[in-house]
Amino acid sequence: MVNRIFFIMILIGLPLSVIGSLMHWSPVIMFIVYCLTIVALAGYMGRATESLAIVAGPRVGGLLNATFGNAVELIISIFALKEGLVTVVLASLTGSVLGNLLLVAGLSFFIGGLKYKRQIFNVFDARHNSGLLIFSVILAFVIPEVFSMEMNDADTFTLSIGISVILILLYLAALFFKLVSHRGIYQHEADKVEEHEEPEWGKWRALIVLLAATVAVGYVSENLVHTFDIVAEKFGWSEIFIGIIIVAIVGNAAEHASAILMAYKNKMNIAVEIAVGSTLQVAMFVAPILVIASLFFDTRMSLVFTMPELISMITAVFLTIAITNDGETNWFEGGTLLAAYIIMGIGFYLL
Amino acid sequence: MVNRIFFIMILIGLPLSVIGSLMHWSPVIMFIVYCLTIVALAGYMGRATESLAIVAGPRVGGLLNATFGNAVELIISIFALKEGLVTVVLASLTGSVLGNLLLVAGLSFFIGGLKYKRQIFNVFDARHNSGLLIFSVILAFVIPEVFSMEMNDADTFTLSIGISVILILLYLAALFFKLVSHRGIYQHEADKVEEHEEPEWGKWRALIVLLAATVAVGYVSENLVHTFDIVAEKFGWSEIFIGIIIVAIVGNAAEHASAILMAYKNKMNIAVEIAVGSTLQVAMFVAPILVIASLFFDTRMSLVFTMPELISMITAVFLTIAITNDGETNWFEGGTLLAAYIIMGIGFYLL
Amino acid sequence: MVNRIFFIMILIGLPLSVIGSLMHWSPVIMFIVYCLTIVALAGYMGRATESLAIVAGPRVGGLLNATFGNAVELIISIFALKEGLVTVVLASLTGSVLGNLLLVAGLSFFIGGLKYKRQIFNVFDARHNSGLLIFSVILAFVIPEVFSMEMNDADTFTLSIGISVILILLYLAALFFKLVSHRGIYQHEADKVEEHEEPEWGKWRALIVLLAATVAVGYVSENLVHTFDIVAEKFGWSEIFIGIIIVAIVGNAAEHASAILMAYKNKMNIAVEIAVGSTLQVAMFVAPILVIASLFFDTRMSLVFTMPELISMITAVFLTIAITNDGETNWFEGGTLLAAYIIMGIGFYLL
Repeated sequence: MVNRIFFIMILIGLPLSVIGSLMHWSPVIMFIVYCLTIVALAGYMGRATESLAIVAGPRVGGLLNATFGNAVELIISIFALKEGLVTVVLASLTGSVLGNLLLVAGLSFFIGGLKYKRQIFNVFDARHNSGLLIFSVILAFVIPEVFSMEMNDADTFTLSIGISVILILLYLAALFFKLVSHRGIYQHEADKVEEHEEPEWGKWRALIVLLAATVAVGYVSENLVHTFDIVAEKFGWSEIFIGIIIVAIVGNAAEHASAILMAYKNKMNIAVEIAVGSTLQVAMFVAPILVIASLFFDTRMSLVFTMPELISMITAVFLTIAITNDGETNWFEGGTLLAAYIIMGIGFYLL
Repeated sequence: MVNRIFFIMILIGLPLSVIGSLMHWSPVIMFIVYCLTIVALAGYMGRATESLAIVAGPRVGGLLNATFGNAVELIISIFALKEGLVTVVLASLTGSVLGNLLLVAGLSFFIGGLKYKRQIFNVFDARHNSGLLIFSVILAFVIPEVFSMEMNDADTFTLSIGISVILILLYLAALFFKLVSHRGIYQHEADKVEEHEEPEWGKWRALIVLLAATVAVGYVSENLVHTFDIVAEKFGWSEIFIGIIIVAIVGNAAEHASAILMAYKNKMNIAVEIAVGSTLQVAMFVAPILVIASLFFDTRMSLVFTMPELISMITAVFLTIAITNDGETNWFEGGTLLAAYIIMGIGFYLL
Repeated sequence: MVNRIFFIMILIGLPLSVIGSLMHWSPVIMFIVYCLTIVALAGYMGRATESLAIVAGPRVGGLLNATFGNAVELIISIFALKEGLVTVVLASLTGSVLGNLLLVAGLSFFIGGLKYKRQIFNVFDARHNSGLLIFSVILAFVIPEVFSMEMNDADTFTLSIGISVILILLYLAALFFKLVSHRGIYQHEADKVEEHEEPEWGKWRALIVLLAATVAVGYVSENLVHTFDIVAEKFGWSEIFIGIIIVAIVGNAAEHASAILMAYKNKMNIAVEIAVGSTLQVAMFVAPILVIASLFFDTRMSLVFTMPELISMITAVFLTIAITNDGETNWFEGGTLLAAYIIMGIGFYLL
């Protein structure tokens, strides 16, 4: 069903995107067309990655998911960075973190909790993730913020590059730890029965879809980025609000849907893995890649968020840890996360 | 015993309050008379609420306790708000949070721990409360603080109203979760034997006592509020110190006593429920009600504490969570909480 | 082996220190000589303390370890304080906290984890320590920082003295709790078999070694402190960097080595006790002693760190708690702590 809708969205959206951008249609309308097209393309990228991951086996598959999982957001951000929109990029990173931790996890726990009184997931993973959330979102983002207050811009950027390299190295180490060195060690026996999955598409078909969708996302993203300033002006939104709410949701919509679906099927390990794992991917892989990529553009991007962005991410991490650390959820815990997301949404809207 | 003392205190204190305020006696003496009278009246309100709660059964009873539990503080604060004493009101909210988390829980754990080596309480409740403490005291109080730095006063107040509405809704959801949807689900079998309690007073007598005591508390509170500035000047205290130490202790004295008594009887579930539950009530119900109530007064109150207030509450929450999260206490953990309270007391005194 | 190297280092380093300081040799060379000599002397002090602790039995022995464990750092800091180098002293306290929590624990977990897949230690101790870390490093260090922003220097110092007294009292209470009131209560049966240890040295020999080494450390430290400004200038380091990296490592080198050795032998209880216990000793005993000692010097030292110092310590504590709170470690958790140490090292170097 969803797949068919996405197919139709691409069939209509992609030509419209090309024509509209050539004919200079109203940016507000094109903004909507671009967003919807990207959502649909992201769905195809996700399915292609999933198929490839199954074909490639658990280790390489895990690596594939870990690198292509946030590809759409990475692509949009790189085009925004090329345009010098550092504020939008940092805001969309923030939006991804908040969206995954509060909106996706919140909806998953809430909707899953309406059906099941108590939902359980692997407590070892939860604790492993807690440590990484504190490392990446709190420690690695707070240090440049505070140190930069007593540094010049060049040193701040040097520090940001250093932190980015360490974040990526630790991200790779975490993959090695999870996929190789300690694979299956922290699983309960019951969880170990890995379901034998059939890939939706064969290797070559998946590769071609992935490649084509990536190119298309790139094309649309470049156009999307150029509509930001006019849309912002038209609706009275700040660049931060566009980054935090719009870009973050567009880039992650497909993923969000599947997390909620998994929670509804009581597969909480997967739902949590999508929500928290995706956050870690943004903080430990997408964000540092963008900092390093900015070396090749005119405007350099330090890892220094605005105070509201940073504090929102920090409090979101503490709330998520308090709620997930016991390996159990219910509808009320989901509601608490959603309430936090709404509070921050109001805050960023009013900024 | 205590009941008889409270009876005598009211018998003497109430007439003195009326006469003293009409005859314009020394505000410092009247300040003491008002405080003691309120402490005694609060004891009666607590007993009346307790009786009504037993008569009404666990669900409505839980709701009654959750709304009338901090009625005295709410009443004092509303009269202070009417006088425009926003600083005192925010300080007394802070004082309630610190007093409950550090002083009441600290004394309970310490005194209970002198008698019992290890005291145990429901670990599910502890974790549930941890999540709510992080949500209400940290997230919901920090966001307006940080965002307001880049907002005008009107937007800050709008944000405060938004957060207040969400806090109250989540508080109601938490009650529904606890009293209806997940009632008894997280209890050990051993705890489930609910003691059949006899109400101290019948329904009507309790209602009349509650009504009369509430009116009396209102009358005395209005007079009490007018003595603040003179007392502050006389003793060289700041308004913040009066709010944090005096109002918070007066408004909660009766409750404090019963928490410590419960710990001494090794009923730790009840002691923790009073200390932490009362904190949540202040943060998720009393504080937002006051923000919304300020719409009807001349001076509007945003949810923006001073930095020392906010940081004290945040560190108190982290310390409480670290200490209670394992569902076990001892005298040393009580001592740690008390040490934290003393440090903050010195700090606010010197401010 | 190590003992023999230390013996030779003292045999050469001590005369060189005396001659060099009398003949006014190059401060940079003497800085290195002093540092190495102190490292070796600290090794002797540690062995003497250990022997005395065994002779004295577990209670007095625990007290001995708790007071002499960070004696070297205390001595260096007192001479630095005498010279008015408050910045260096606060930085070296920060460096000790970061070094113990991130470098020592990180190396221990990493190296131990290369040999063992999962290493386990007492989860009760871990939680007990979590509470104390939050109390001492977060609450007791953040309160003076925030309150001092709205206070004059005299009040800030008064608050610092008050907090210092409370920290020392709570430290003594923690010793009493651990060595007397709750001794052995939180241990698993398996851990209770205390190995019967033979002291390396007899009582008198240990006492003489301890006394002689302490006097020698004092002499060398006084000279060391005078080289700081020239070394800082020569290498372009800030005083903070010297304090955080150099003084902290020199003062704790011997201890660091034994923590890693213990982890390699899978004695994780001891490794964690050294890393975290030493941090608590610095925060709850060394730091407050120095604040109080500054009463007797020209320059008074308040407990107010720089923002980068404070935030580094806070994030280090949160990371350590997230990683140790489950009573289990592996190489990846060690790597995470080391990554955090490197990030902060870069930050302080660039400051």
